[in-house]
Amino acid sequence: MITESALMHNPKSTQCYAYNDETLHVRLRCAKDEIDKIVLWIGDPYEWAVGGLDGGNLGGSDAHGWTGGREVPMILEGETQNHECWFAEFTPPKRRARYGFILYSKSGQQKLLFGEKRCVEISDESVAEVELSDLSNFYCFPYINPRDVLKTPEWVKGTVWYHIFPERFCNGRPEISPANVQPWGTEPDHHNFMGGDLWGVIDKLDYLESLGVNGLYFCPIFIASANHKYDTVDYFNVDPHFGGNEAFKTLVKEAHQRGMKIMLDAVFNHMGDQHPIWLDVVEKGKDSEYADWFWIKEFPVYEDKPRDQWDGTNLRYETFGNVAAMPKLNTENEACRNYLLDIARHWVKEFDIDGWRLDVCNEVDHAFWRDFRQVIKGIKPDCYILGEVWHDASAWLSGDQYDSVMNYPMTQAILDYFALNSRNKQEFIWDVNRSYTSYPHHVNEAMFNLLDSHDTSRILHLCGGNKDKAKLAYLFMFTQVGTPCVYYGGEVALSGGRGDGSEANRRCMIWDKDSQDLSFMAFIKELIDLRKSEPDLNSPTIQWLEVDNDDCVAYQRGRLEIVINNSEQPQVVQVNNETLSLSPYGYRISGN
Amino acid sequence: MITESALMHNPKSTQCYAYNDETLHVRLRCAKDEIDKIVLWIGDPYEWAVGGLDGGNLGGSDAHGWTGGREVPMILEGETQNHECWFAEFTPPKRRARYGFILYSKSGQQKLLFGEKRCVEISDESVAEVELSDLSNFYCFPYINPRDVLKTPEWVKGTVWYHIFPERFCNGRPEISPANVQPWGTEPDHHNFMGGDLWGVIDKLDYLESLGVNGLYFCPIFIASANHKYDTVDYFNVDPHFGGNEAFKTLVKEAHQRGMKIMLDAVFNHMGDQHPIWLDVVEKGKDSEYADWFWIKEFPVYEDKPRDQWDGTNLRYETFGNVAAMPKLNTENEACRNYLLDIARHWVKEFDIDGWRLDVCNEVDHAFWRDFRQVIKGIKPDCYILGEVWHDASAWLSGDQYDSVMNYPMTQAILDYFALNSRNKQEFIWDVNRSYTSYPHHVNEAMFNLLDSHDTSRILHLCGGNKDKAKLAYLFMFTQVGTPCVYYGGEVALSGGRGDGSEANRRCMIWDKDSQDLSFMAFIKELIDLRKSEPDLNSPTIQWLEVDNDDCVAYQRGRLEIVINNSEQPQVVQVNNETLSLSPYGYRISGN
Repeated sequence: MITESALMHNPKSTQCYAYNDETLHVRLRCAKDEIDKIVLWIGDPYEWAVGGLDGGNLGGSDAHGWTGGREVPMILEGETQNHECWFAEFTPPKRRARYGFILYSKSGQQKLLFGEKRCVEISDESVAEVELSDLSNFYCFPYINPRDVLKTPEWVKGTVWYHIFPERFCNGRPEISPANVQPWGTEPDHHNFMGGDLWGVIDKLDYLESLGVNGLYFCPIFIASANHKYDTVDYFNVDPHFGGNEAFKTLVKEAHQRGMKIMLDAVFNHMGDQHPIWLDVVEKGKDSEYADWFWIKEFPVYEDKPRDQWDGTNLRYETFGNVAAMPKLNTENEACRNYLLDIARHWVKEFDIDGWRLDVCNEVDHAFWRDFRQVIKGIKPDCYILGEVWHDASAWLSGDQYDSVMNYPMTQAILDYFALNSRNKQEFIWDVNRSYTSYPHHVNEAMFNLLDSHDTSRILHLCGGNKDKAKLAYLFMFTQVGTPCVYYGGEVALSGGRGDGSEANRRCMIWDKDSQDLSFMAFIKELIDLRKSEPDLNSPTIQWLEVDNDDCVAYQRGRLEIVINNSEQPQVVQVNNETLSLSPYGYRISGN
Repeated sequence: MITESALMHNPKSTQCYAYNDETLHVRLRCAKDEIDKIVLWIGDPYEWAVGGLDGGNLGGSDAHGWTGGREVPMILEGETQNHECWFAEFTPPKRRARYGFILYSKSGQQKLLFGEKRCVEISDESVAEVELSDLSNFYCFPYINPRDVLKTPEWVKGTVWYHIFPERFCNGRPEISPANVQPWGTEPDHHNFMGGDLWGVIDKLDYLESLGVNGLYFCPIFIASANHKYDTVDYFNVDPHFGGNEAFKTLVKEAHQRGMKIMLDAVFNHMGDQHPIWLDVVEKGKDSEYADWFWIKEFPVYEDKPRDQWDGTNLRYETFGNVAAMPKLNTENEACRNYLLDIARHWVKEFDIDGWRLDVCNEVDHAFWRDFRQVIKGIKPDCYILGEVWHDASAWLSGDQYDSVMNYPMTQAILDYFALNSRNKQEFIWDVNRSYTSYPHHVNEAMFNLLDSHDTSRILHLCGGNKDKAKLAYLFMFTQVGTPCVYYGGEVALSGGRGDGSEANRRCMIWDKDSQDLSFMAFIKELIDLRKSEPDLNSPTIQWLEVDNDDCVAYQRGRLEIVINNSEQPQVVQVNNETLSLSPYGYRISGN
């Protein structure tokens, strides 16, 4: 029997969307192991035996006589913990479609029509004739309007990212370092500075080019107080300790000459408490012309006692998290909105950056991001707009806001399986499939995949220092849909945890060759080369291969077959009628 | 056992939305008859035992230690064919929320945590402690940004609509009727004219006021060729056969003096083929400055043979349906878009209309409707924006586009049960519950409920002329959430079918008192009075009452209890320990 209560389809969502100006993608979710096949019954709403111009939507005698339905077989896209996700592609002849799903049970006993309003047992041909021609029970994709279709930048799909935390990557000009700079390699804390700057990045562009990465994502570079620079003081100027605008202009030019793209961090949810606009509010209270640029509950905004005695959960103004130094911006205020949009425009227009990564963007209103997209794409249509959303991000990915998001759910799946061993192979496969089936294919193709970041522990740390484990995590990420990112230093096995006050994940880059793990670097280089030579590695589906060994996982991506031994023992495994011996944490990539 | 595969929740959707600037509504869908209770586990993401500023989103040791969770009991909002929908309201202390669902099975054997990434059996307290403090598995409502929150106009919630097809309501000035006008009461066809005009409506405002309606929705009134005026020729002028702009200005003034609102029909998907802009394209082809205002596949746009020999399914330009006389507008063209937005603005600004009903609006791009909302709400914040969407309309109802939609799914439920008897009581209840649980509460409160329209057969026709049946349909509609609408003449038992070429649903209004059914009118008046005296009839939940008789249905709305005998036999029925005798198609409304 088919579990009817498990059938789920939402029209105009990640389950039915325009992949491009002509093509619809349609998905159906159902319970597992019950379905033999599913056929998408789909066609033009205006194909009628008689009439049908209007009466066709309401039921009753009016709605019968639809002759538009066609059969399109669906394929099983992936299994998750409790579901199968089925998929089909269809090109509506006239951009419009009505559709339902015909499900055949494994037993062969049951045939169901799952429509928008009800689920009907197709017991015989006469029922089929009535139900499959009754337009009132079908889902509707009214019209593919090209303007609504999400277009993700083509270049992103071929990008391998390198993520730089500027204060810790390379100190190119010690003379511009902060006064209190620590020796390179000092253990990081929340307050110390190491002197990394953009001149240093420029110095290392040859290194990055030889590594093979072709996209650089920078944590904030604008003038700010903290070492992480998320507390902006001046959005229009690169921090002088990073080399100022001059260094950045040079960097963009040099990077572009090497075919590398540059993505900056847009911190528009909040500003730093040393920003002159906020200081004006602190000083003038409600008489400040900027008073409405923030969410203020009471003036004066600061309590008349030392800051360390304030209750972070009950400040007089809204903040990022409970951080008093990061007052939240009111993007509903038109002047504030325009100010931020000017910033977004400025760096694209004047500095030719290629992407914006949007910090804490799910706490900023959707309307702002719609304006943002229009502004950015209006200047540079292939500028990448990447949201930092750790949870389901569908609400931002329907074409009007972001191109894609940081793929933390995939990160989690990889960590749980390869680093933490907290999920078994079956659970891992479910988690990965969940990532593939959660978003439209073109969102996945432009997904920003990562194993770690300035916000998380480093992968090697989570692997307990086991480099073989970390390698498998990289291998897996590099062979999935979406664009892989290396967090600076990951390629030389830099480690470090985050949490409970530790910021070891932001340690200084290792430049001393003797301290770099060059074999690890060679491995990462190989993955980058593989990625670039095999564009199929960005294909939107994954095919898991049957293996007879619970410690091994195997999958096909494009023409490549990958078999991984995720255990500390050697394993013998049979894949596709071939017997393989894999060393501990060993793997094999083969093509045909 | 709880059917895990049936559990469904989508964040930032009709299942989790901001009802107002402070309040979240959260829903969960599950299989039927399995659940004893559900508790929403919800709270602020930044309440942590230690740390939690960033590490809290990824799993592993980082994510544990969340102390923000609180228990909020959920209520069963309604049952549909295969599901229960559970509901809860929560006011996040700081506008942010993370949440999951704790489900208790009927058997008492099972306790589940349903989170964003996985479903976990809570087998004992130690599991509970780990799982309920692990932020990585919770759904996220990142922040209630007031600017994103859908605000539906307050006045709509107290409105009873009257829907006028202007050509057929009242001929106030025979001297402005079309030359070929037919005698009032002639059977309608696709081509004939009866001479209805807005002066006639003005003449009948006293009648409408005495009927009690306080909102008038007009099918198109702008200059157009066809009797239905959906083929606009001049968007800036009311059709001279309807009395021109002068009559309309007078009408708005007179209606407003009576406290009546005016809603017009915005036909922006297509224009008429006699519009000068289209004629310019017909004449000049691709050299017309308006060539890009349409979706044209080939020039010249007309084939060199008589129109009746064209293949409607393969025209050289996109159209509404397959109607050659209605070329589809290209709202992606900026000039075209601005032209349409100017029209929308003009009638609100210069004529003070109170609402726009958007024709075929789901075939126009979302981006256009976002602009439309900004333009309209910018001039008149409480102007009502009503979409004509017959199918699931969630994609237009998240705050950026429409206020609400025409509630055809409710129409269908009512017709199927009261008029066509094609669904039984249980199915009817499911269908109605589906309507209640498909959209946010504030969308439902502003829903445009209808039994019939210019696009459907009249309710009395679908009831086979049985006025008692039709009365029950009206009674039911008038006692539901959303605003009821009477299609002109419905109140005097005007009938007429639609389909297979018949346009009898657009018959002339009956003004001859001897031909009006005054008793039917008295009934409709009573319903209107009831609606106005009982604002609770617009409350967002329905409570069905147990009755021991399959032919009777009973429900509670606010303080009113309604019992209906939907059969042609007298029925005895027990409700709330009271025994009632109901005549055929009888009913009882009682309050406490």
